[in-house]
Amino acid sequence: MELTNTSKYPQVIIVGGGFGGLQVAKALANKPVDVLMLDKHNYHTFQPLLYQVATGSLEAESIAFSLRKNFDNQKNFRFRIAEVTGVDPEAQVVHTTIGDRHYDYLVIATGSTTNFFGNKDIEHNAMPMKSIPEALNLRYLILQNLEEAVLQNTKEDREPYLNFVLVGAGPTGVELAGALAELRNHVLCKDYPELDAREMRVYLVDFLPKVLGPFSDEASNAAKRFLEKMGVEVMLNMKVQNYDGTTISFEGGKTIRTKNVIWSAGVMGVVPEGISKELIVKGNRIMVDNICRVKGYSNIFAIGDVAAMITPETPKGHPGVAQTAIQMGDSVGKNIIHIIRGEPAEPFKYNDKGSLATIGRNKAVADLGKIKFQGFFAWLVWMFVHLISLLGFRNKVVVFINWVGSYLSNNGGTRLIIRRYVKEAVPQENEPIPHTD
Amino acid sequence: MELTNTSKYPQVIIVGGGFGGLQVAKALANKPVDVLMLDKHNYHTFQPLLYQVATGSLEAESIAFSLRKNFDNQKNFRFRIAEVTGVDPEAQVVHTTIGDRHYDYLVIATGSTTNFFGNKDIEHNAMPMKSIPEALNLRYLILQNLEEAVLQNTKEDREPYLNFVLVGAGPTGVELAGALAELRNHVLCKDYPELDAREMRVYLVDFLPKVLGPFSDEASNAAKRFLEKMGVEVMLNMKVQNYDGTTISFEGGKTIRTKNVIWSAGVMGVVPEGISKELIVKGNRIMVDNICRVKGYSNIFAIGDVAAMITPETPKGHPGVAQTAIQMGDSVGKNIIHIIRGEPAEPFKYNDKGSLATIGRNKAVADLGKIKFQGFFAWLVWMFVHLISLLGFRNKVVVFINWVGSYLSNNGGTRLIIRRYVKEAVPQENEPIPHTD
Repeated sequence: MELTNTSKYPQVIIVGGGFGGLQVAKALANKPVDVLMLDKHNYHTFQPLLYQVATGSLEAESIAFSLRKNFDNQKNFRFRIAEVTGVDPEAQVVHTTIGDRHYDYLVIATGSTTNFFGNKDIEHNAMPMKSIPEALNLRYLILQNLEEAVLQNTKEDREPYLNFVLVGAGPTGVELAGALAELRNHVLCKDYPELDAREMRVYLVDFLPKVLGPFSDEASNAAKRFLEKMGVEVMLNMKVQNYDGTTISFEGGKTIRTKNVIWSAGVMGVVPEGISKELIVKGNRIMVDNICRVKGYSNIFAIGDVAAMITPETPKGHPGVAQTAIQMGDSVGKNIIHIIRGEPAEPFKYNDKGSLATIGRNKAVADLGKIKFQGFFAWLVWMFVHLISLLGFRNKVVVFINWVGSYLSNNGGTRLIIRRYVKEAVPQENEPIPHTD
Repeated sequence: MELTNTSKYPQVIIVGGGFGGLQVAKALANKPVDVLMLDKHNYHTFQPLLYQVATGSLEAESIAFSLRKNFDNQKNFRFRIAEVTGVDPEAQVVHTTIGDRHYDYLVIATGSTTNFFGNKDIEHNAMPMKSIPEALNLRYLILQNLEEAVLQNTKEDREPYLNFVLVGAGPTGVELAGALAELRNHVLCKDYPELDAREMRVYLVDFLPKVLGPFSDEASNAAKRFLEKMGVEVMLNMKVQNYDGTTISFEGGKTIRTKNVIWSAGVMGVVPEGISKELIVKGNRIMVDNICRVKGYSNIFAIGDVAAMITPETPKGHPGVAQTAIQMGDSVGKNIIHIIRGEPAEPFKYNDKGSLATIGRNKAVADLGKIKFQGFFAWLVWMFVHLISLLGFRNKVVVFINWVGSYLSNNGGTRLIIRRYVKEAVPQENEPIPHTD
């Protein structure tokens, strides 16, 4: 085990290098604390653009940024690749895959993972898309299934490979549906001249009566209109019953034959062992007080997707979006310093900056407070906001070039299968491709 | 199985989408043949820049290009992801992982793989770097070992993680040695402030008395001088005895403790089953006549690394470089048309365009016929030649931006561990990182 911290400063451990964790570390720069960030990956993931990695419009590395590099200039920051397996609040220790680490202040910024609501069949057969490896797996599956479709002789045999069913019509589902429709409309005829684009179908399913549930009705309606214009089949008020890997079934009896089910119907917080079960509320989130402190503990905080700050205005907690994590992270970083200095902590106040979702080229929806607009201008705003939010100058430039290239050519992106996706077992480089005939 | 080709044109099957295979297909554009390219990957790999993927300077996707996309506009071209498991020259059929395919003309452009000269220990423990998945594995191993080094308490414990031994001082070994030295000299102190850069050591080993064996003495000497100036320890006339995963041993008794051995000491052709063993010469290459036709067959060709055209001027065949493959590919494409038209085939003539190798920033060597130069101007030429040779405008722009960024910042690139490398078994996304303490 590494030598323990011998510094005279309090040790702040941040678990997770997502939007929230990053912000805590930033707020603690040049402050009298030692910061240790733990993450199972050595990079930050810009989740809002994961769907473009999945469809091959962007490389994974353009939406990720090295956590070490990001804090190159922050003297009190250290980073370790580690997974936290548990918390011992009595001993002020986290158990991790690289051993135990002592903390004076702990920030749980572990985010969320896909919620399959207990359905093991769906969990096994549908594709989640919450991390870069998952988005890459999805990309490889989509491309492999297009290749499989080419090898089939009849429309019926091709059908399951060319039907794409997206469950969950939140921003992720909507954006992915739009991107798949563009792939069908513009790329398929060029890259797969053997296939008839009309045979590829994109279904977007939700159990709610609208797409983009939390958005305004104007935004929802416009998004649905945009999607349908692009050829996406939007199925609302539909509840998924099961998915066995070949057929997805819905309550009421409808079924679709498909090898491509992408599940973005819900998330749940990732809570380390050791946090009292009584503090866990709906969505597997940890109840926190008005300074994001885990109830009952003086020095453990939780922020972002894994935290539920329940107030009269937010009876289910704050929305599980990047802005919540960023603002909570900033607040917690500052409050840790207040607490160390014996100053009163400042209650967290959420500043709703609004919501954006894009559907495709020239098409997006924006709810910015009372200002709501849809279409080309919303799309420009969406691009601008995402570009400036990306970590790293290089990433901004590379993503911008990719977008310009895609816009001009209608055939951008790199649709490469770097590592073949095989369910359950990740293949060796030289593993033969299974026979299909 | 797919419906067989019902076209009236002869079927040309090209096995492999490397430099040679691409060129054959290009030469057959708009000609009265049907072209089917088979490759186990759906992309072309620009092998000369693999080492920059391994050190995290470039993303994998910048040096790869979709084979389907590359031939979007070529009407007589089809592509399938498939591995060829054998050739049946009597039946004019290739056996593949997607079934049998009939050919009228077959071009074997399968390239080469790493040659461990039969040493199973080395094959199991050392890292090859001939494909994108291999280069990524190497990147992940290098980064993981730096992370491991951080977790160790003593210089002795850190030593095997921080010693890098490159076996084979050809262009690949030299370029990788330079890139690792730059990582040590410029990046380590920023990204890993816990480590002392002097503890990281880069060894470049060859059994020959010079680096860059086939280059001029001027180039070799300059490359060695550049490398040593950057802190690479060049060990010549050294023959590796064994490597058990922790210690590499050399004839004469010297040993180095290291977890990082990269093997670029030799290559061997990838020959499909069914080609007569009598035609295989040293380096596992297939003997071909003066039009790259496999000896004894009228309609099977072999080009590039897998072909040996033995002439008085080339007693061991042509050099295993991109130029050989490109020129042979072009020649074979044209000769297939000549043969179909009943015209005489044109013997292959190799045009040696010279050799380039870079060692690091502002440092390269160039042997262009009688013109030999080293240093900054050679480095500009190296960059220019590699940029224009890359497939795809987007790739050229992205690589250029990355290079400019790295040059200005001395800390470019994306050193991300997207999928943890584990020997033998590729891990699941959530596999815990093994304990080290």
